Amino acid sequence: MIRKSIYSLDAYTPGEQPAIKNIIKLNTNENPYPPSPLVVEAISKVSVSDLRLYPDPVCTEARRIAAILHGCSPDNIFFGNGSDEVLRLAIDVFVEHGGLAGGFVPGYSLYPVLAAIHESRWRAWPLPQPGTLGACADEICKERECPSLFVIINPNAPTSTAFSRAEIGEFASKYPGVVLVDEAYSDFSDSGSMADMALTHPNIFVCRTLSKSYSLAGMRVGYLVGSAEIVSAFYKVKDSYNMDRFSQAAACAALTDQNWMRANCRRIRSTRGRIALELISRGWNVPESQTNFLWAEPPSGVRAEFVMGELRKSGIIVRHFPEALTRSRLRITVGTDSQMDEFLSVLDSIASV
Amino acid sequence: MIRKSIYSLDAYTPGEQPAIKNIIKLNTNENPYPPSPLVVEAISKVSVSDLRLYPDPVCTEARRIAAILHGCSPDNIFFGNGSDEVLRLAIDVFVEHGGLAGGFVPGYSLYPVLAAIHESRWRAWPLPQPGTLGACADEICKERECPSLFVIINPNAPTSTAFSRAEIGEFASKYPGVVLVDEAYSDFSDSGSMADMALTHPNIFVCRTLSKSYSLAGMRVGYLVGSAEIVSAFYKVKDSYNMDRFSQAAACAALTDQNWMRANCRRIRSTRGRIALELISRGWNVPESQTNFLWAEPPSGVRAEFVMGELRKSGIIVRHFPEALTRSRLRITVGTDSQMDEFLSVLDSIASV
Repeated sequence: MIRKSIYSLDAYTPGEQPAIKNIIKLNTNENPYPPSPLVVEAISKVSVSDLRLYPDPVCTEARRIAAILHGCSPDNIFFGNGSDEVLRLAIDVFVEHGGLAGGFVPGYSLYPVLAAIHESRWRAWPLPQPGTLGACADEICKERECPSLFVIINPNAPTSTAFSRAEIGEFASKYPGVVLVDEAYSDFSDSGSMADMALTHPNIFVCRTLSKSYSLAGMRVGYLVGSAEIVSAFYKVKDSYNMDRFSQAAACAALTDQNWMRANCRRIRSTRGRIALELISRGWNVPESQTNFLWAEPPSGVRAEFVMGELRKSGIIVRHFPEALTRSRLRITVGTDSQMDEFLSVLDSIASV
Repeated sequence: MIRKSIYSLDAYTPGEQPAIKNIIKLNTNENPYPPSPLVVEAISKVSVSDLRLYPDPVCTEARRIAAILHGCSPDNIFFGNGSDEVLRLAIDVFVEHGGLAGGFVPGYSLYPVLAAIHESRWRAWPLPQPGTLGACADEICKERECPSLFVIINPNAPTSTAFSRAEIGEFASKYPGVVLVDEAYSDFSDSGSMADMALTHPNIFVCRTLSKSYSLAGMRVGYLVGSAEIVSAFYKVKDSYNMDRFSQAAACAALTDQNWMRANCRRIRSTRGRIALELISRGWNVPESQTNFLWAEPPSGVRAEFVMGELRKSGIIVRHFPEALTRSRLRITVGTDSQMDEFLSVLDSIASV
């Protein structure tokens, strides 16, 4: 009865969301600081009796505010139930069934699963070093079949590194298909958002999320910045009422309070630098992170998976991806300073590290 | 750049959600009464600082409560971001691209759009009279190609009529594919939910929504009751975190307070009967409704569309579907008694009715 490709599908496994309290949760890149007080206020103002009424199907107010933020028209903005919805619809809008989508590896392992559900093919190229993305476009374009949609996670997860604006622009100008820039982590980077490039390059669109920098993972808000033509295609295929009344209110408030978001990003960046140095001083290999996590390799002779297990015994959860390209490292979300001090202290207590 | 079938798609148009206040909104089958006080309480208890954390990806608590309600295991329950998500995933799970899905017409016009987005075909059979559904299964099964998924909206929208349990059971036992019973309106019917049949018939699953009877259209909560095999397929293909923290809390509270929901349904049924008689006494044709709306045809010589326009001038919005099979009638949501008195009084003031 069940469609063949779904019956045999290896589903995506999201990071663990344990119900236990008193753990230090450094495994799914959540923000350790709460959302803006404006969000608290906006949520308290949502009328519970009005929950009997459908929400605005096209998120008019949130799009108006996002448009002010990005200096564009509301017609350039699409809101989704988390950026997950935006990413799923991106495959749906730009890739034919049986068609090809592509991206880099290591990357976000949800993409190949979305392609499989859609019965399209996913092809992964090795993640180029920062500075070599433009040349990589030449290589991809030389192939017999070029993906109709190419995903660049920038900064990239789980590697924490970023491409420059110039590189992204060069890639897109050479690329014959559509380029999705997934900016889940860009608010933690030096260069910030490149959403403005989606307004000047017709084949770029940018996906942003309020889960990380705006501390709203529990609220499910993501959005796309792109041409009016792209946005209108997304509105054709989304579920009729994809954003509930609370998430629309929270989105408006969170986007309005840029200062709150920026202050938290600054705190996280500062903690990030401190902990990176602490790890490096202990013999770890840690590339300079442009995100809210560290992509950290233990000193030689120590297995990442072992460290993860030992941390867990002390109530600290980090993420390990067991695939060949990623298994030598841990992805460690940057928490508060005191959480990270506890992390270091547990690390030091693990005898063999 | 955009996938061909989406570029050319005629998107589904949801009912109007006007931002104007002081209208009497009888166009999208919302409940005129607010949600349960337990929902208010549950929402006030959601920790806004915990919004920084992802929600439970598999809605453990809401499924536990729905399972108690339906006398089944949580493994028989899937929660979606509104029943819209459940319906979309139903096509995705059970229909191959290029495959066939089917249902009755007049019905919910979203279904053919979902099939078109999926690039499957949709075939509609004329809605059988109550009492003739079993015979209709014989006819459908005789066809060269039987839809792999068949949708029965019960009670049906926009016609407001219902099939009996025995008929649904007979249909499913004859039917070689999967039967989705869309129960958006069943809490307003004499027979109530048939979700238990999804537990005894392996090819039936039932889709339910909290938008109507539970007064939570603005919160986006729907769920499926079906075999563990069906539920597990839905969990494979949904977005990772499809239900936010507020909607999970609201779902738990609303489902717990069955008395509140039932009392509102009783009030609506009572108003429904009174207004149906009022319309009939004015020469309208109104079939006995099993839903929270009336499927009402004005006296001969009066165009439904004209009445809709006149009502609108007085701030009362009802729904008109301009297709051939439905254009002679209006779908009028049952509001509060005082809203419906106002509706009747405006109706009486329309000179030519």
